Amino acid sequence: MFQFNILKKSLKSKARIGEIITPHGKIQTPAFIPVATLGVIKSGLSPFETIQSKVQCQITNTFHFLDLDRADQVEKMGGLHHFFNFSKPIFTDSGGFQIFSLGKGREYGLGKINSIFNENQKEEKKGNNLLKISAEGAIFSSPRDGRKILLTPELSYKIQKKLGADFIYLLDICGTPLDNHATAGTETRLSHQWFERFLTTHYQDKVKKDQAIFAIVQGGIYKDLREESVNFVNNLNVFGIAIGGALGKNKKEMYKTISWVQGLADPLKPRHLLGIGDMDVLEKIIRLGIDLFDCALPTRIARHGQALTSKGGIDLKSGKYKNTFQSIEEKCQCPACQNYTIAQINFLFRAQEQLAGKLLTIHNLFFLENRLEEIRKRIAMSKF
Amino acid sequence: MFQFNILKKSLKSKARIGEIITPHGKIQTPAFIPVATLGVIKSGLSPFETIQSKVQCQITNTFHFLDLDRADQVEKMGGLHHFFNFSKPIFTDSGGFQIFSLGKGREYGLGKINSIFNENQKEEKKGNNLLKISAEGAIFSSPRDGRKILLTPELSYKIQKKLGADFIYLLDICGTPLDNHATAGTETRLSHQWFERFLTTHYQDKVKKDQAIFAIVQGGIYKDLREESVNFVNNLNVFGIAIGGALGKNKKEMYKTISWVQGLADPLKPRHLLGIGDMDVLEKIIRLGIDLFDCALPTRIARHGQALTSKGGIDLKSGKYKNTFQSIEEKCQCPACQNYTIAQINFLFRAQEQLAGKLLTIHNLFFLENRLEEIRKRIAMSKF
Repeated sequence: MFQFNILKKSLKSKARIGEIITPHGKIQTPAFIPVATLGVIKSGLSPFETIQSKVQCQITNTFHFLDLDRADQVEKMGGLHHFFNFSKPIFTDSGGFQIFSLGKGREYGLGKINSIFNENQKEEKKGNNLLKISAEGAIFSSPRDGRKILLTPELSYKIQKKLGADFIYLLDICGTPLDNHATAGTETRLSHQWFERFLTTHYQDKVKKDQAIFAIVQGGIYKDLREESVNFVNNLNVFGIAIGGALGKNKKEMYKTISWVQGLADPLKPRHLLGIGDMDVLEKIIRLGIDLFDCALPTRIARHGQALTSKGGIDLKSGKYKNTFQSIEEKCQCPACQNYTIAQINFLFRAQEQLAGKLLTIHNLFFLENRLEEIRKRIAMSKF
Repeated sequence: MFQFNILKKSLKSKARIGEIITPHGKIQTPAFIPVATLGVIKSGLSPFETIQSKVQCQITNTFHFLDLDRADQVEKMGGLHHFFNFSKPIFTDSGGFQIFSLGKGREYGLGKINSIFNENQKEEKKGNNLLKISAEGAIFSSPRDGRKILLTPELSYKIQKKLGADFIYLLDICGTPLDNHATAGTETRLSHQWFERFLTTHYQDKVKKDQAIFAIVQGGIYKDLREESVNFVNNLNVFGIAIGGALGKNKKEMYKTISWVQGLADPLKPRHLLGIGDMDVLEKIIRLGIDLFDCALPTRIARHGQALTSKGGIDLKSGKYKNTFQSIEEKCQCPACQNYTIAQINFLFRAQEQLAGKLLTIHNLFFLENRLEEIRKRIAMSKF
């Protein structure tokens, strides 16, 4: 049921356009996957409004369904598509990101959006590490009630099967930029063992759901480990390849890390850069051959009043926009720009009305999707 | 431009059906006026979703536009209808309710929804009275920054004109059930003076907007004062009559107070019961001849997980609904019931997703509007 067709490659870069065929429709690539942490995009968007925002698909976090019988609830209604009334393709991550964010990410106060290390960040301990890694799996202490949760590759598969997304992810250990070569190597190889256990469980499962699998390249900031990981992943029977873990200390290093992986990754498989989606890296990562990327940033900044525009980000909460009676982006066709001026949205933000965050979320998603549409057109016309 | 046509009167009670013609369309009465405190119904409803909820009109609080140049902002865009993209009739109150809620209401911890005194409530001071009343007007200390705001009848008119609602309200002193006869009498008569000042300002205004005015009957829990007030109000050149202030210590007393007013009020004018709209008093107040009523309750309880159903209120956050795979109300045609089961909304509430409050707000409004539609039909068919 799943297919990835490359429609055209750029001559000047590694960029390419393609389509991913799924049981829930096509995804035009390069594609953005907005984050629907608990099944819905935050800010109260209805599925109708999500579709109005031109969103092609969405990704939900498996970790939040480990607890509280949530996965069972969703399964009883026939999976995420039915439970959240979303008819387009859905992705679920594996829970591996929380091995970073609740582990060393929390301990050292590292960014949650991505694991690019801030150059000025000191290696001071800032919080509790809620995680222990063993060969068997990752043991989390629930941030809510301290309860222990053992996340194994087998459990990650089981939960992701219950959730029933179109695309599921192998359980990996998401590393940090603080890891030295030895730690990164050990964790990358343990991830590889987990991949095999996950896949064994999947392929031995007699009542599999119609789900396509992504493997994740780890290896941190070390070229030899990245190469080892991508070679391992190339040999797995999976649909797509994701790039996870620590990507470097700055954007330049991140681009280098991506290049290492892309140079070796099976060119026929879709490539997903995990957790990166700032506007200022968009074109560059696409030039490096990325087909899919997910990021909470465009929707998170929307909830805090930041609008994406062709002139850069603007803070719609600012008092200076009280009397700006024009839309966020000239000629933007999104429902927010078609019906509201900046002054109105500014008022709603200052009045703390939820409608403000919703309108801006719709705009930011629409803006980003439009930008990608343009990029895909430029690639098609050999102008990228 | 404004007209109130009584279409049919019940033979068995004071209930009646009618229509109020406005520049923004008709309101079928008896009608519910949902509260849009700052211009929009809370929970992030778009105007489209508000209309989907069968809402006929809405009421916005003038008090929140006294500060921060908000009224000017709204005026620059052509008034509330344009600023909040709401095409149906809009009401604005006068600010008189805050004379209660920030004054003695706050001091004695009295209910904000209505001023029905809880029988068991003790007359202990519980907060700061942020208000002083003088002949000139009410002096508020801003709860935000302590800044003094003098609200006069002239200012209330000026702000309400800027906001440009269809229906505006005379500035009154909203009394409390703690007021003795002397206080209630003094404040009722001062309210009457303010009514005359408000109306003088309005009728001397050379560039009036197309707005219809409601006067407010005060007099608290005292029959002679209520009668004095309604006789005064009957002689004013206004479109409608509202009933405000303290209505009694319990529902029985409230019904008695309403009867006193209704017995004398000009029968050709629409009657608005201010701030009351619980499901359990709905039929009774309509039987007493109420044409309009506003209340924040149906939308406020929605945000906290309480659903209105034909079997009474239910708490959708409760764990017992985790696996209730049926809609809130059987056969309900609202967008929430058409697309979501209780289990899904329960999940969204527990996950603290804003979508939950929005869905339930849509349902509660739709449910209440439907109930009113039924009541209007029953009155039309002489079955009420």
